[in-house]
Amino acid sequence: MQGIEPLIYGLGLAGAAVNAASGVLEAGRKPFDLFGMVVVALAAALGGGSLRDMLLDRTVFWIADQAYLITALVAGVATFLLARRVRLPAQLFLLPDAIGLSLFTVVGTSVALAHDAPWLVASLMGVVTGVFGGILRDVLCNEAPVVFGGELYGSAAWLGALTLIALPELGVGHDVSALSAGAVICTIRLLSIRFKWHLPIYSARR
Amino acid sequence: MQGIEPLIYGLGLAGAAVNAASGVLEAGRKPFDLFGMVVVALAAALGGGSLRDMLLDRTVFWIADQAYLITALVAGVATFLLARRVRLPAQLFLLPDAIGLSLFTVVGTSVALAHDAPWLVASLMGVVTGVFGGILRDVLCNEAPVVFGGELYGSAAWLGALTLIALPELGVGHDVSALSAGAVICTIRLLSIRFKWHLPIYSARR
Amino acid sequence: MQGIEPLIYGLGLAGAAVNAASGVLEAGRKPFDLFGMVVVALAAALGGGSLRDMLLDRTVFWIADQAYLITALVAGVATFLLARRVRLPAQLFLLPDAIGLSLFTVVGTSVALAHDAPWLVASLMGVVTGVFGGILRDVLCNEAPVVFGGELYGSAAWLGALTLIALPELGVGHDVSALSAGAVICTIRLLSIRFKWHLPIYSARR
Repeated sequence: MQGIEPLIYGLGLAGAAVNAASGVLEAGRKPFDLFGMVVVALAAALGGGSLRDMLLDRTVFWIADQAYLITALVAGVATFLLARRVRLPAQLFLLPDAIGLSLFTVVGTSVALAHDAPWLVASLMGVVTGVFGGILRDVLCNEAPVVFGGELYGSAAWLGALTLIALPELGVGHDVSALSAGAVICTIRLLSIRFKWHLPIYSARR
Repeated sequence: MQGIEPLIYGLGLAGAAVNAASGVLEAGRKPFDLFGMVVVALAAALGGGSLRDMLLDRTVFWIADQAYLITALVAGVATFLLARRVRLPAQLFLLPDAIGLSLFTVVGTSVALAHDAPWLVASLMGVVTGVFGGILRDVLCNEAPVVFGGELYGSAAWLGALTLIALPELGVGHDVSALSAGAVICTIRLLSIRFKWHLPIYSARR
Repeated sequence: MQGIEPLIYGLGLAGAAVNAASGVLEAGRKPFDLFGMVVVALAAALGGGSLRDMLLDRTVFWIADQAYLITALVAGVATFLLARRVRLPAQLFLLPDAIGLSLFTVVGTSVALAHDAPWLVASLMGVVTGVFGGILRDVLCNEAPVVFGGELYGSAAWLGALTLIALPELGVGHDVSALSAGAVICTIRLLSIRFKWHLPIYSARR
């Protein structure tokens, strides 16, 4: 590991921790016990990358490197214990969550490109890595996925993934492309929360 | 590709498009945005074949050939846009959907047989390919899968898959077996809608 | 196969049958037809081991050996038919289910260890094998997973998996470790039902 690699590795672990914590908070309305909450936290933190790796027939990342699993476990249990004593407002997680989304999407797209996936597939793998954990969390909580509505989330991830794929074609270096893509995702996500940007909602004629 | 192969390839793409479109229409009661609807459309169109390929440890078909992904994406977005202007009655899709079910099941069973799966597993893979996309669509919409009740659907697929496996054992050629199996599925499905055939419903003694 | 291997194989098939049967009974409140109930039964019986094998990139166990699939199918259909005539109280299944949980967890952990998974991953794979079938069953029934609350279930499996990993480190032989781990799971599970042991429930400060 050299250059920005150690930073990305550390941010990836931080992203897993944030996803695990927000998994517990999002599931908070459900009367789940510690075991249920840990499963939801692990699904939120590791689900996206796991689906990506199974689809690409790669070794699943948290089996290759236990650090992700341990981080998600500790973050999930800590959030479970903390939230009983301290009020943890969901807004606290908006910025870390946006950073986590950016990182997971950039890493997921890069992994797919390195695995020789075609560009459209690679961009989708970025979105899957960034978003599927939250979808799985909501399915396990028996609720419709929150990312299917509301402020821009998956679409921000997709734009960032396409940025990551397009920039090197224009001669931009790898690290700058990755940082730009992450900035695109994080910025769109935060602006969309601030200014309440929404995608069109489906409304069929009947 | 020779013989009926190009036809089957084209029909497979058409099946993906129909599944994506019906995914959007089925999810229509939900207040999902464009991103959510695209995810549901992709899950409906690609979910069955993806699960088959992951279970069989094959390269996932839409990663090997992006045409399926592009077709499903375009069909999903087009349905999203069209349904806001034109009333698209669900009945419009009954025949294309029956053809899609037939194709997906025949292709899924053939793929599993070519992968040396035992016959019962191969028939189940046909059913998974034909039916799991719809199940996944309903799970993402937070509803019980519609194919778990109503007119014959998965059971029609299973009978067709068994036909595809049995006929070559009786000396029938590959193409004729495939066409017969597809005809079995499509016919049973349409007759069951017309005459309201149902499987027995579970009703436990308490 | 020698020593206790044939016994474990037979108990594994019995575990699949019990899971399939309890899948049908748990889904009993839903108006599913025979096809839907068979899908739920197969998901309950085969889902945990399937996810384990896909995560570890192993050949999926019921594709390698059709006996599990046939057993689960027969048990699911038989339960469907039986439950219409005879009242099958859920308590009837508490002991077989506890034995099934023990077996699936011990087998799942052993498989992961044999696949060179690190210890924490291996223990989680044991839990996945024992518990994920029931989670998948509940997701397909559009209900929150019952194992996320109530008496100890997944946590009992985890303690047993850790026992199976720890004992050989202390010099205990493989068969004795496996039997001890199974006994730990079964005992904790049954005692927790008897004495209504629960894990802490999540309750956030708001």
